[in-house]
Order: sequence, then C-alpha cells, then structure tokens
Amino acid sequence: MAQILKGAPVVAAMNEANAARCAALKEKGIVPTLAVVRVGAREDDISYEKGIVTRCGKVGVEVRQFHLAEDVTQEELLDVIRQINGDASVHGCLIFRPLPKRFDDRRVQEALAPEKDVDGITDGSMAGVFTNMPIGYPPCTAQACLEILKYYNVPLSGKRAVVVGRSLVVGKPAAMMLDRENATVTLCNSRTQDLPALCREADVLVVAMGRRGAIGADCLREGQVVVDVGIHVNEEGKLCGDVRFDEAEPIVEAVTPVPGGVGTVTTSVLVGHVVDAASAQ
Amino acid sequence: MAQILKGAPVVAAMNEANAARCAALKEKGIVPTLAVVRVGAREDDISYEKGIVTRCGKVGVEVRQFHLAEDVTQEELLDVIRQINGDASVHGCLIFRPLPKRFDDRRVQEALAPEKDVDGITDGSMAGVFTNMPIGYPPCTAQACLEILKYYNVPLSGKRAVVVGRSLVVGKPAAMMLDRENATVTLCNSRTQDLPALCREADVLVVAMGRRGAIGADCLREGQVVVDVGIHVNEEGKLCGDVRFDEAEPIVEAVTPVPGGVGTVTTSVLVGHVVDAASAQ
Repeated sequence: MAQILKGAPVVAAMNEANAARCAALKEKGIVPTLAVVRVGAREDDISYEKGIVTRCGKVGVEVRQFHLAEDVTQEELLDVIRQINGDASVHGCLIFRPLPKRFDDRRVQEALAPEKDVDGITDGSMAGVFTNMPIGYPPCTAQACLEILKYYNVPLSGKRAVVVGRSLVVGKPAAMMLDRENATVTLCNSRTQDLPALCREADVLVVAMGRRGAIGADCLREGQVVVDVGIHVNEEGKLCGDVRFDEAEPIVEAVTPVPGGVGTVTTSVLVGHVVDAASAQ
Repeated sequence: MAQILKGAPVVAAMNEANAARCAALKEKGIVPTLAVVRVGAREDDISYEKGIVTRCGKVGVEVRQFHLAEDVTQEELLDVIRQINGDASVHGCLIFRPLPKRFDDRRVQEALAPEKDVDGITDGSMAGVFTNMPIGYPPCTAQACLEILKYYNVPLSGKRAVVVGRSLVVGKPAAMMLDRENATVTLCNSRTQDLPALCREADVLVVAMGRRGAIGADCLREGQVVVDVGIHVNEEGKLCGDVRFDEAEPIVEAVTPVPGGVGTVTTSVLVGHVVDAASAQ
C-alpha cells in the first residue's frame, strides 16, 4: 500500500507561501502581475487560462489577458510580446502554445524577455535550467515534479533517479533539476534497452513518456517513489497516467495519482514564478 | 588488450575535412577567421594559443590575436569583444579563461555573440547543447569525446553511457550530446553511491572528474569503451588521466590514452566550429 503523493497539499502550501510573498510585495507597492497571451479560442487554452486566473486570484497575483483574434498576424503577436516586455508593471508572461502552425514558434519564443519567461520557453530559461544559473524560469511541469518530491521530503541527494522521456518541457529539465539536488540521474529515451530493468534501478522514477499505461509492475520494485507526469483519457473516459496506478500502488513506496498529482501543481509553480519575477524586478 | 583510441587519426581526419571546407569557402571569397583574446601572458594560455595558431594555419583558418595587457580594464575587454561581434570578417572568437579575478566573468561571457561563440561559453551555446538547436557551439572538450566515439564507430544508440563529472565544460554537455545520439545517459556526481557498480553498467564510460587515477579496475568490465578526459601530472612528471590506464587496458574493449587522447582533438573541434561559423555567416 503505497503512500499517495497528492498534489493538493503541495498546492495548499505553495499558495500560502505565494500569498504571503504577494502581500509583502504589495506593501512595497508592487502588485505581481502575469500577462497571458492567447491566440484564438482553443478549448484547452481557455480551460487552462481559467485555472490560472482562479489560482492567481487566490494568492493576489493580477492577471492581464491578451486575447488575440484567430487571424492575428505574426507581427501583431510579436508587438504584443514587445509591449509586455517593455511594461514594468507586468512581471511574467505566459503564451498559450502550440500556436497555430502559420506562426514561427521559434521567433515568438525568442521575442519574450527571459526575465518575464515564467513558463520556461526561451533560450535563456533553457540555459538557466541547464547551467543552474538564475536565468529565466524552468518549465512549470518539470518543476512541479520537484515540488512534490520536496514537499513530501523524498531524499534525492545520492539517490538514483531515472527519468523516462526527454522532452524539453518535462524530461530533460526534470533531469537537470534532479541533478541539481545531487541525485544520480539517468535519462531514458525510446531506444533505451531493457527499460523495465533500468526503471527498477531507480529510487525515484519520473515518468514523462506521454504513453498511457506504459509503465507497469515489471518496471517497479518496492521502496521506489514514482512521479507520473502523463495524462490521458482511457476507454471509459477516465483520466489516467503513463503509469498503471493499480499495478504500482501495491508495490512501490509512494506514487503520484492521475488526476490529482503533478498536473494540479503546475499552475502553482507558474504563479510562484510570477511572484519570483516581481521580487526580482 | 584494449584498442587504444588515439586522438591523432581523429585529428588527421578532422583536419582534412576542415581544410577541404576552408578551400571551398575561400573560392567564395570567405576566409574563415578566428579571433583569440588573451589578457596577460599566462603560460597555459600562450601554449594553447600556439597550438591553435598551428592547427588553424594547417587547415587555412586565419587567426587574429588580440593580446591585452595584464592591467586592461573590464570595459576595454568588453570593447574588444563588441568590436569582434561587429566585424563580419571574424567568424569565431575564443577568450582565454579563467580571466584574472577582478573581471566579471559572466558579463564577459555574455558580451560575446552566440553565433561567434566557437568555444561554447555563452548562454546561447548552453541552450543549444541542452535543446539540440543550432544556437552557438558546444564546449570543445565535450564535443571532442563525441568526435572520438564517432570516428571509431562506437555504437551509441540504445547503449548505456555513464558520464562521471558534471562540469559545464565537459560532463553535462557530453551527457546531452550522448543523449542526442540516443544513448541512455547517466550523469554521476560526487554524491553518487557505489560509483564502481554504476560505472560497470556503462557500455560507454566518459570520465571527467578531474581527479587523477580515480577510476580503476573495480569500475570496469570487459566490453566497455572508456573516454578519459582527465589530464594531470603524476609524481614522476608524466601526464596521466582520471583513469588508471594500466588497470583499464587489460580489461576494457577500448580506451583513450592520456596524453594523446581527448586533449589532442579539442583544438580541431574549435577549428571546425570556426569553419561552421564561416559557412553559416
């Protein structure tokens, strides 16, 4: 019977800390402010935006919404980003992506000032996460994995961490952040041979493959802490992760649930970055 | 009896390729040109510079030497870098480091345009090596490890690679470059538990600890390819590496020697970056 590493108490603790920091900044006349930039009206974006607005409201971060028409030009979008860069009263900026295909995503990413890149999309943020220097901010989902591990006091220094999946939004930055905590980190990919054996070597297993139920009992052993970043809808319409939870739960020491795990923490990480950015600027 | 992965044939092949590419560029009126910036007259720097000038001369890369007095100010140094950034006839720039302590190393690093950063010191180069995008250039020593492995056709895809040491000039970028080749990479650090057992898991072992003779027979098994990045002087005044060569050689499948291994390839990587930069600009 594994400990279930729920996101909710992590979120509660982060909200409390963020709210206190917000209040302290407001006493100095600084209102931590996040700009969100949305092109068109994708359902996913709208729902994520709602979550952000709610979470920000709770801790005292102001949100400025830039809603651009579906047919906005690249130049108009870049103008909005430049305006945000130049506005000292805005501390962080989230651009909903993926953008429609006609945009040059790379140019959009690079238009944003790294010090306002609270979502970790710029080269500055990538350099920061790789070098462990205070440049930009790490991608929120990767940091959410670490926030959960830290909240539940999971030992990392000297431990074996295995990260399955090497995307730039989760796997690779999570690997760097685990290394920063002095874990010995192995980064797996689709060519990895005998993935189950490798996973069993992990004290901490971070699964960010984006494949539903890819990790089961054969990949697990007792004593492990498992962080499941995947989020999928199964045949019955229920949310589930990359890890077969019902197989993991009787074996491992602790596991994050899906839903209610990593995903719930991501927005609080974003909000925390805005407060960090407001403190720094 | 291991195969000795000497640097010399790697260098010869790289020189040949670089010379051919230089000749082709010259036909288009482009002379690949490297600026070297040296503050003061440290013996190490002068000797490295000599090596660079010789290697560049052999393949047809022009070198412009900026020798600044020991008492040059930070602003004067930054002016030289800005001048190099703005000079379209200079394609790459190497700044000898470490700089004297009174300099703000970070500001100097960041003053250099990433597209001329052939030595991999800027945030742009760090982001490039982390994201596998064509921004800047990887640190030369890290790439030298990969050049040796590629020259000797060492299989990497799906193989276990273990990197011991996580510096930003060797270990971490080497880990990223091995990942790029689809190896399953483990990055070890000083807190790693049971390092010998972990090293024995490696098909390819890259040792960049900076500790003389730290890796011996207990860390090795047959079938491994070992890349030794260390360079030290022993009690008898002889050069040696992080790996105890006499212990490795009877056990492993292949090993780089010290001297005559990774170190010899580094300058050719630098020269190759200058040619790349000249081709790109």
